[in-house]
This record gives sequence, C-alpha cells and structure tokens, in this order.
Amino acid sequence: MRPSGRSPDSLRPIRLEPGYARHAEGSCLACFGDTHVLCTATVEERVPSWMRGSGKGWITAEYGMLPRSTHTRTEREATRGRQSGRTQEIQRLIGRSLRAVTDLKALGEMQIRLDCDVLQADGGTRTAAITGSWIALQQAIARVRGSALPGRSALTDHVAAVSCGLVDGVAVLDLDYAEDSAAQADANFVLTGRGGIVEIQGTAETTPFSTDQFQALLGLAQHGITQLIAAQKEALGLGETP
Amino acid sequence: MRPSGRSPDSLRPIRLEPGYARHAEGSCLACFGDTHVLCTATVEERVPSWMRGSGKGWITAEYGMLPRSTHTRTEREATRGRQSGRTQEIQRLIGRSLRAVTDLKALGEMQIRLDCDVLQADGGTRTAAITGSWIALQQAIARVRGSALPGRSALTDHVAAVSCGLVDGVAVLDLDYAEDSAAQADANFVLTGRGGIVEIQGTAETTPFSTDQFQALLGLAQHGITQLIAAQKEALGLGETP
Amino acid sequence: MRPSGRSPDSLRPIRLEPGYARHAEGSCLACFGDTHVLCTATVEERVPSWMRGSGKGWITAEYGMLPRSTHTRTEREATRGRQSGRTQEIQRLIGRSLRAVTDLKALGEMQIRLDCDVLQADGGTRTAAITGSWIALQQAIARVRGSALPGRSALTDHVAAVSCGLVDGVAVLDLDYAEDSAAQADANFVLTGRGGIVEIQGTAETTPFSTDQFQALLGLAQHGITQLIAAQKEALGLGETP
Amino acid sequence: MRPSGRSPDSLRPIRLEPGYARHAEGSCLACFGDTHVLCTATVEERVPSWMRGSGKGWITAEYGMLPRSTHTRTEREATRGRQSGRTQEIQRLIGRSLRAVTDLKALGEMQIRLDCDVLQADGGTRTAAITGSWIALQQAIARVRGSALPGRSALTDHVAAVSCGLVDGVAVLDLDYAEDSAAQADANFVLTGRGGIVEIQGTAETTPFSTDQFQALLGLAQHGITQLIAAQKEALGLGETP
Amino acid sequence: MRPSGRSPDSLRPIRLEPGYARHAEGSCLACFGDTHVLCTATVEERVPSWMRGSGKGWITAEYGMLPRSTHTRTEREATRGRQSGRTQEIQRLIGRSLRAVTDLKALGEMQIRLDCDVLQADGGTRTAAITGSWIALQQAIARVRGSALPGRSALTDHVAAVSCGLVDGVAVLDLDYAEDSAAQADANFVLTGRGGIVEIQGTAETTPFSTDQFQALLGLAQHGITQLIAAQKEALGLGETP
Amino acid sequence: MRPSGRSPDSLRPIRLEPGYARHAEGSCLACFGDTHVLCTATVEERVPSWMRGSGKGWITAEYGMLPRSTHTRTEREATRGRQSGRTQEIQRLIGRSLRAVTDLKALGEMQIRLDCDVLQADGGTRTAAITGSWIALQQAIARVRGSALPGRSALTDHVAAVSCGLVDGVAVLDLDYAEDSAAQADANFVLTGRGGIVEIQGTAETTPFSTDQFQALLGLAQHGITQLIAAQKEALGLGETP
Repeated sequence: MRPSGRSPDSLRPIRLEPGYARHAEGSCLACFGDTHVLCTATVEERVPSWMRGSGKGWITAEYGMLPRSTHTRTEREATRGRQSGRTQEIQRLIGRSLRAVTDLKALGEMQIRLDCDVLQADGGTRTAAITGSWIALQQAIARVRGSALPGRSALTDHVAAVSCGLVDGVAVLDLDYAEDSAAQADANFVLTGRGGIVEIQGTAETTPFSTDQFQALLGLAQHGITQLIAAQKEALGLGETP
Repeated sequence: MRPSGRSPDSLRPIRLEPGYARHAEGSCLACFGDTHVLCTATVEERVPSWMRGSGKGWITAEYGMLPRSTHTRTEREATRGRQSGRTQEIQRLIGRSLRAVTDLKALGEMQIRLDCDVLQADGGTRTAAITGSWIALQQAIARVRGSALPGRSALTDHVAAVSCGLVDGVAVLDLDYAEDSAAQADANFVLTGRGGIVEIQGTAETTPFSTDQFQALLGLAQHGITQLIAAQKEALGLGETP
Repeated sequence: MRPSGRSPDSLRPIRLEPGYARHAEGSCLACFGDTHVLCTATVEERVPSWMRGSGKGWITAEYGMLPRSTHTRTEREATRGRQSGRTQEIQRLIGRSLRAVTDLKALGEMQIRLDCDVLQADGGTRTAAITGSWIALQQAIARVRGSALPGRSALTDHVAAVSCGLVDGVAVLDLDYAEDSAAQADANFVLTGRGGIVEIQGTAETTPFSTDQFQALLGLAQHGITQLIAAQKEALGLGETP
Repeated sequence: MRPSGRSPDSLRPIRLEPGYARHAEGSCLACFGDTHVLCTATVEERVPSWMRGSGKGWITAEYGMLPRSTHTRTEREATRGRQSGRTQEIQRLIGRSLRAVTDLKALGEMQIRLDCDVLQADGGTRTAAITGSWIALQQAIARVRGSALPGRSALTDHVAAVSCGLVDGVAVLDLDYAEDSAAQADANFVLTGRGGIVEIQGTAETTPFSTDQFQALLGLAQHGITQLIAAQKEALGLGETP
Repeated sequence: MRPSGRSPDSLRPIRLEPGYARHAEGSCLACFGDTHVLCTATVEERVPSWMRGSGKGWITAEYGMLPRSTHTRTEREATRGRQSGRTQEIQRLIGRSLRAVTDLKALGEMQIRLDCDVLQADGGTRTAAITGSWIALQQAIARVRGSALPGRSALTDHVAAVSCGLVDGVAVLDLDYAEDSAAQADANFVLTGRGGIVEIQGTAETTPFSTDQFQALLGLAQHGITQLIAAQKEALGLGETP
Repeated sequence: MRPSGRSPDSLRPIRLEPGYARHAEGSCLACFGDTHVLCTATVEERVPSWMRGSGKGWITAEYGMLPRSTHTRTEREATRGRQSGRTQEIQRLIGRSLRAVTDLKALGEMQIRLDCDVLQADGGTRTAAITGSWIALQQAIARVRGSALPGRSALTDHVAAVSCGLVDGVAVLDLDYAEDSAAQADANFVLTGRGGIVEIQGTAETTPFSTDQFQALLGLAQHGITQLIAAQKEALGLGETP
C-alpha cells in the first residue's frame, strides 16, 4: 500500500492548464498531485550564435524552484550566484526532450525558450515540467506557425515524462516525495506519442537493480505516459494525431 | 479617464489569499489586479552572525520575478549569476518595511525570511509584495509565538504599501503597468495601521514635481492604504486591533 | 544641542572643489564636513546598446567607498566580487538625479559616466555625491558642448541633495554619522534650482513618523538645498541662472 | 564496418595503469583507445558539514578536461569562472556510481575525493573516468583501511562503465568520437561486478529509439563491462572476488 | 633629456603625508610626482585561518585604482566582479615587501591589512604604494605595540621601492607614465634601509636587455631608494635607525 | 649536499617531448625531474578585439594545475570559480616571455594560445612551462608559417627559464620542492638563446639578499639556461640557429 493510497500502477491526479500565464506565447500549469510547475514558452528571434545562418531553429529550457516550494526552504539560486548541478541537469534534459519531437528545420530560424518554474514540489518536478512544456511549446508554435498539430507542423509528436521506482521491492509509478526519499532505485522515462524512447535515466540509490526490475519500471512508464499524452490531447482539445 | 476605467482614487481589485503555499510557515498570494505576488515566510533558527547573542530576532526578504511574469521575457537572475540593482533595492525595502512593525526583542532570537516571487506583473509588484508579506509574517509569528494579534505580540501594527503617480498631470492611485510607463512622477508609500509613515520613495521620471503635487500623492496613498489594511484584516478574519 | 554644536537647521561646512582630478573631463571634490567624495565625469562615445540610434544621450553613475574611508574597515567590493545592494541603490539614485536636470536629446548620442568615490565617510555620502556630481557634469558638458549654463544647454537646472532626520524628536538638517546612527527616521531629498522635487527617500529606522514630521523635514531640506546650490554657483563662478 | 575497424561488440584497446600519480593516495590512468583520463583519489579527514557526526563516510568526484584534450580547444572552466552543466552532470554521475559500491558506514567518517581529468579525449570520457576511478578508490581504501578486497571491506563490489549507441541502425559498443557524433542514440551503462545496474542514461539524439533497440544496447553493455572488470582485476593483480 | 626635464638619476618630487586618513590606525598619502596613492593600515584581531594558534602575525595588502585616476577611464573592478591579474600581482608584491621587514613573531597574533588606493596615476603606482605603506604600517604598529622604531620593534627595517627603465637606450630612474609607455625594459626594485634586496622584477618590454644594462638599473635604484628612505624618516620625524 | 644529491650548479634530469598532445597544433611535455608540465599551442584566427586590424599577431598563455599534481590536493580553480593570484601571475609571465622572442608583425593577425597544465609538481612549474611552451610555439608557427627556424621566421630566438635560490646560504640551480620550501631567497630567470634577459623575478622569502648573492644567482641561471636551450634544439632536431 502506497502512502498516498494509490495502486502501484496509478498516476497522481493530473491537471494540465494551458494558457495559464497571461503574457507568454504559450504556457501550461502542470500539476502531478501536489507538484505544480508553471511552464511558459517564449519565442525569440535570435538563435544561439553557433546556429546563425543555418536556417534551423532551436529549443532551450531553464528550470527553477521557488525557494519555499520545498518542505524546507531551498536557497534562491539568484542569491547564491549560480545554478546547482541538479538544476542544470534538469534544464538540459527538458531541452533535449522537447527538441526530440520538433523538426528544427521546419521551425525555421527562431528560438523557443521554455521556462519551467516549480511553484510547489512533491516529487517528479522534472517529469511534470516536460509534460507541461509540450503544451506550452505547442501553443507557441501554433501562434507563430499557424498550425501546430503534431505530425503536421514543426511538432512531430507528443512527448511526456514520468518517474518510476522500486519502493520496498515493489515497482511503482509516478513517485511522490515520500516515496522518492525511500526508493531503492528510480528512473525517469521520456517517451513519445508513438511510444519511442527519448530519454531513460535510471539510478540505483542504495542497491543496484536487476535487468528484470528495470523491465518492470519501463512497463509502468509506458502505461503512465499513455495517460499523460491523453491528458495533453484533452487539455488542448486535440483529436487523434496521425 | 484611466486606461482601466478606474477613477483617480480607486485601487485595482485586491485579493489576498492567506495560506496559499502548502509548505511555508506563513504565506499569501497577493493580487493587485493582474499583478500576482506569492509571499512566503520561513522561520529559521539562526539569526545573521552579527546578531548572535543579542536576544533579538531579524526579518529579511528576498524578491524575484518569474522570467515570463513580464510582457517580454526578463532574463533569469540565477542564469545571469547575480541579482539586479532593482531586485536588491526592492528586497531591502520589503525587509525594512516589515521590521518597522515588528518588535524584534519580543520576537526572540530567530530569523523570519520573506520570499516574494512575482508570478505575474502588471505594475506595483513591490507594493503587493509588502502588503502580502504582512499576512505571511503574521501567520508565521502566530505559529511560533502562539498569538500574533498586532499590538499584542511581536507584531506591533499592520503595514501595507501602495504606489501613486502623476499621469497626464493628474494624481492617481495604484498605477498599473500602462500608467507606470507613462507617469511623470511616481511614489511608493509604506504606511502602518495607525497611519504612521514607514517609507516614502518618490521619483520624478521626467519633470520634477512640486510640493503640492507631492501632498496630493500622499493623500491618495493614505486613502488607499486604509482599504488595503481592511483587506488584510478581512483575509485573516481579524477584528479590530488595539 | 547637536553633537557637532550646530543648530538644527545648519549644514556642515561645505566645500566644493571643481577640477580636482587631473585626467577627468569634469570633476569635483565635495566635502560636507568630514565626508569627502571625489566625483568625476567621463565622456564616452558609446551609449548603452538599447539607446543606439535614438539620438539621445545617457548619464549613468557608479559609487564606491575606499575600504578605510569608514570608522571600521569596509570590505573591498572588488575582492568580494560584487557590489552590495546599498552601493547599487546609491548609484542608481545618483544617475536618476542627474538625468532629471539634463536634456538628453540636447546632449546628443553620448554617455557621461559619473564616478563617485568616498575618500572619507562621516554620514551623507550620497548627498555629497549628488551635489558634487552636478559640478563634474557641468564641466564635462561645457567641454563637449562649449557652453553648459543651466537652462541654456543640455543642462536644464541645478540639482543638489541633503539629508534630514529626526534625532531625539527634533528635525535636523544634514546628519553626520553620529546623528545618522541615532536617528529615529531620516530622509534624503534631491531638489532642483527652481525648487522642484526630483527624489524623496524617507525611512523610519525605529518608529514610523507622522505627516507633520515629514513636512518639517521637507522644510529643512528646502532651506539647505538653497545654500548648496548657491555653493555650486560660487564654486563655478556662475552668476544667476535663468 | 566501424571507422576503427572494430566489430560491433568490440571494446577499444583498454589500458588501466594503477599508481600513475606520484602524490595521490590512489590513482589510475584509464585509456579507452585514444581517450586518456587520469583518476586520482584523495583521502580527506572532513566529511561535508551535513554528514558530520553521522559516523559515515562520503565519496565525491570532480571532472575536468585539459583545454586542448579536444580536437578544437575547449575554453578553460577556471577562466570562464564556472563549470558547465555537462561537467557537473558528469561529476555527479561519477560520484553516485562509486558510492553505489561502497559501504559508507564501513568506510567511517572520512571523505574520498575522486578527480578525473581528461588528458586526451576521443569519446567515452565519463565511462573511462568511472572505470579508472574504481581503481583509484580501491588503492585509497587499501591505504587507509589496510585491506580493500571488494566484498571484504568498505568496497562492496567492482563498478565499471561503457557507452553503447545506434550508428547507422546498428548497435555498437564503446563509441569513439567519430561514432558518437554520428549516433542516432547513445546510452551510458554503469554496472557492478555482479551484473547489477547502477545507472542507465539513454538519449535519443535524433530519432526516438524502440524498446528492442534499447535491449540490444543493454546486452552489449553487459558484454563489455565483463571485460572491463576483468581488466580492473588484472591491473590490480586481484584474484576472484566473492 | 627626459620629458619631465629630469636628469636620468633624478626622482620626481616626493611627498609623504603620514596620518592622511582620519579613521585608519596608520596612513600615508604617497606622491611620486603626479602619482598619488593613499595607503592605510588596519589592525585586525583575526589572522588567516591557516595561521591560528601559531602565535605569529600576518601582513596582507589590497590595491585598487579609482576609475578615473587614469588618463582614460579604467573599468571599476567591483563592477566587473573580479580583480585583474595586474591588481593581484601588485597586491601580492606589496604584502611580500612589507612582510620582509616585519618580525611576524614579535608582531604577535594579529593581522595588519594595507589598503593602497590610487587617487591619481602617472606611472610607478606600485612603488609609491610600497613606500607609503611602510609609513602606514609603522604608525599602526606604534599604536598597538607602543614603539615602532625600526630595529627595535616588530619592524626590523625600512623598505621602499622605485622603478628604473631603459628609455631610448638610457637607464633612467623613477619612470613617469610617458616614459613607462616608451621604455624598452623596466624593473621594479624593493630594497631595505640596509640596502638588502627584497624583490626585483625586471621585464623586457620589446627587446631583451643585457647583464650590464641590468647592473645600471640596479645602481640607479640603490641611489633612489636611499633618498626615499630619507624621506620616510623625515616624514615621521625619525632620527637614525640602528 | 642537496637533498637530491645534485651539485649546486646541476639541473635536474630534463626531458622535452615534442608533439605529446594528439590534437594540438604544437605541444611538448616538459619534465624537470618530477615536475611534469604539458604545454600545448592552439592557433586561433581571432586576435583580441583591441588588436583587430593592426596586422599584428598575439601570444597569450593560460596555466593550471591538476588538483592532485601537488603533495596535498589543491582546490580546483574551476570549482572555486576563479583563478588565484598566483595562477594569473604565472600565465602573464609565460605570455610575456614567449612574446619577447616572437616578431608579432611577422606572425600576422592571428593568436596563438599556450596552455600549460601541470600534471605533476615538484617545484619550478613555471620555468618548465616556459621552456616547454617554446617548443609548442615553434611547432605551431612551423605549421602555419611553413618554417619556424628561430631568427628566420616569426620566431626571433629561443627562450627558456630556470629558478635559482639561496638554500642554507649556498646559491643553487633549479630548485625542487624541498629546496624551494627551505630557500631564503629565490629568483626565476627567463633568458634568450643569445643570452638576453627577458625577465628576472627575485624574491627574498625570509631575509633580504645582497647584490653579490644576486649576481651568483644570475651566473647560475646563465649556466643552466644554456643547457635548456641545447635540450630544446636536440628535442626538435634543430642545428645551430643564426
């Protein structure tokens, strides 16, 4: 029995609110239970200098946590003067994940910058950030490219992410903070609408895990991401994608 | 006629939501129209090193803006590696304002850290931050000191803030972004529940203003702050304060 | 009776030495009693990037203190690797104050950079810095524009600054360090030659102050600034300004 | 046919030189073909402050590249003033990987710091760093604990790492720089002597990969890591480990 | 003929004003012609952590230039966020030079911090800084140790510095900025009252110099430093030192 | 008798390995006994901005130490976020030394960047760095200019460096770490193939030294540098240079 009363293969209540931020070209408040992440997309005319003249666009991401989004206060990175290794790892992951479902050539020479800010944290902030960023990105591309149906525009597919882990020897889906702290191993999976693997990051926190255990986590992830992508479609009122 | 249709002496719709943040010892989402600031209070056992052993407490504040809280994206200060002069000015102002209504001796040797994060900006973020921080502070003191009625505890009075400015030669209350950009002069006033002045910051943006004009701004501020303090009381369900 | 033996409405001995720095386009050593601030003006061909092509000029300021200008040594900001919030607040104030009496259009596309370095500190360094910077600016504009009579050139008026405060319940003018440390409230006023208000910054250090008290401080400031502007005229050998 | 002439399941020539650095408590020059990484282990008496008094030890890692270890010069991070996100990601990975095979309780309250410096880079620097760090760590523990046989001391097992990737649709083992640049997807695997998974990091560079493709990569990694662990044993003259 | 009309072996007019700074434990304004450096000494109770409990004192130095001390403005190091290599080189040299004439054991466990700030620059700022710092140090030691006669206290001797250079093939003493810019080679010499060499830094700017040329520079330096040490004695009203 | 058993005028075993780094345009592993420094030369198309359009080239240097090149671990400068004063002093010295034997006009508008990284330290790292950098520079110039014979190309002469010091009152050549720590005074000499002096840096560590002692050090340096330059020629297979 999980602390939250969920069954091993259940997601937390998922809420995706597109258009949450008034000023951004695209936005989404992504809530996985008590984890709330505000994702915005900003369209910029300039690509990074090493891409100028390539005719291709770029997608990049930044990630931050409000100091008191966490149980005990986390020091503000602007005050410390630099971003932690964890922050950099996460924002690089978000950027890679969204670029994997974007046709940068079709996007054209512009940059879309995704900002993912954690308003409240209860485990799984990076997976909520990726899942919500896809909606913010979709809105931003629709605004600049007219249409943004996956597969018919610069956006080639959906992408979403979820964590899985081994807690007390049982493989469970979408860990909250209590489970995350107690897990022997956990893994983040980023998958596309067609089921392709974009990123897998599995880490044994205390004891190495076996190949079989890893397969179980992957199976749970595929199950969860199907639901997350359905939630993305519903939030945007999209029908079937080709 | 103001862009928002308000009369010169009208505040924007004010909304103060105490307890907005799940993990903090005190919190408030303060909305002045489309300006939304999340204020949290964190209680820390350690005071700054220069205060150790003094038996007195301390209150400090930090301020930040989400990158896309603004009309065009503002660079993330954690990425730049330092806080701007404007940020530092504002967080120093918030700290001073709240300390002015706290009996640091009665608080005892602990630090309360206020974090004010702008989720959406439409002018007046620092005044919303001060007004909301008072509620977050009240909650935090109530939690650690049992009672936090102003005048009966470490908290000696209410404090709230509002901006006024000269727009097209007319003195107006609580400027939004459109007015702020067009103002000849503007001033921020921080006043207490008993009408005392805690801080005045008046700046002529384009042309110096006269003593009479300044008096008009002060009068508007007193009018507005009476309403903001009433809103604080209502939000917390407080009756009359001594 | 004030520690210095001055009456409540007396300035400290004021000394303004134009042309103090050999290499700068304009300069002034501004002494308010034992507070000595060296102000220099540097003319630069390049305006900030966001102003290029606007045809307008810009004025900016930097402020610093020699480490042992203070009673106990202040850490060198170059060693700490960043400027304090106080430093940034002061240099932003100096820049705004001088821009308020400059016709940036008439100045033309160039930047004048004011450097205010405190050689010795005894309270009121920012007010001495503003008062002395006006002279440095006047000299620099005269050098590049031929004439710099206020009102007849890019310079539209004089500007000077002074502090006032409540010490033991009495409103006094031009606080020195001993008074500044003991004041219940203090305020810095930046006024023009014609009496216009450019900036007011009033802060209650310990107890909020009343509207009447604030009026008394403003009255003292108007009295003091008249004398500071007369000192500016005398230092530069200027007659009446229109 | 691979650029290097290797078959898909062949490692590059592996060379592990224990004791390479004269001053360190443990060291190894780890060469995977033309990738050369110098790994050193330093024993420090102090653990991080959050661990003091826990009775447990800690293992941490730092990673760097000589500026001209790369084909074109990489800017020196000491000159830039900060470590890149990639550097931080890698050094966090190295630390986690080695902690996973160390009994921190048995180690006792001390810190072992692993420094991995790339003298020459040709792909796979992080996998060579992990594989070589195990030897440096083994030597350092042997020096302070007398014995360091895996399974009989603070060291619970071997750990080694290798990369695999999809190049032109074929799964290949131990990518060099030429293959790494051309890969559709690649993954780094960190496995123990008993075959447990410590870390998996798989990334689709251009197109998402399938579950079957991922299984192929995992199979290659298991094959390669068996050989790397044999090389560790041979380098240290270790017999069978329990 | 030198630009200044001096003969090759003439110093510029030297002026040493002890006690120039009101707040410091020791101070001196050191003027070598138009080069003006304010040197202050601050006595601190704490030595650096690596010296605690050694019973010995320490002397350290910091150096800075006012932005407009130079012909064209030099960027403020506090704004850039770090000290240049040149600044660090100079402040290390000043510290070493003064430590060479101090008996750190006799000083006792305290730190004296020398701040050398260039108010106006015309070549030779580091030599003026060393020469003036000796006076500031002497005053500070006298204040804390009662007596500070060289040879009879923690101060074992005088120390002073001067530059020499080859300009148009001629060896000249005490270069000003015009000569410094045109010199083929220059050298800074730090010598004691008894003629001992504390530091020699010779650099060929354009063409290597010969041993004979170097001897000529050393001879000039010995000649100049005799006069600088006489000026130190006169400034402090010291008679002969043992 | 020296700790190493060398006579006072003996160098340590010298080894210069040109072409040590696979990717660089020029390189050398320079070993002075147990001091090992890897020097690489990188040719860059862009000169620093203040040189653009001058038609002249530039040579610059960077220096670093691997954290565990030293007896006890030295903190990584990339982690600290800045280079120490010592590092900056050394890299400025290397740059100046190599520029002194390069005809920057003949080099043409390009920059050569020398990276000197200490793999193992046992005293004299800066002198090994200069001596090895000359070889790396020679190779890089040969690659871009076809010929790089000293005196016939952009390279006007050899340059090499060595340290000398007073240990127990005896002048000795090429100090190792044990001697360096015990020396009363030491000096670094940078001389050219024709015997010209490029740089002299002499420092009294504990007691000032005399003119005669300094001459003895200079004599030893001339003796040692003759051998170092012979080693450079041999390493590159160069015959006599004009």
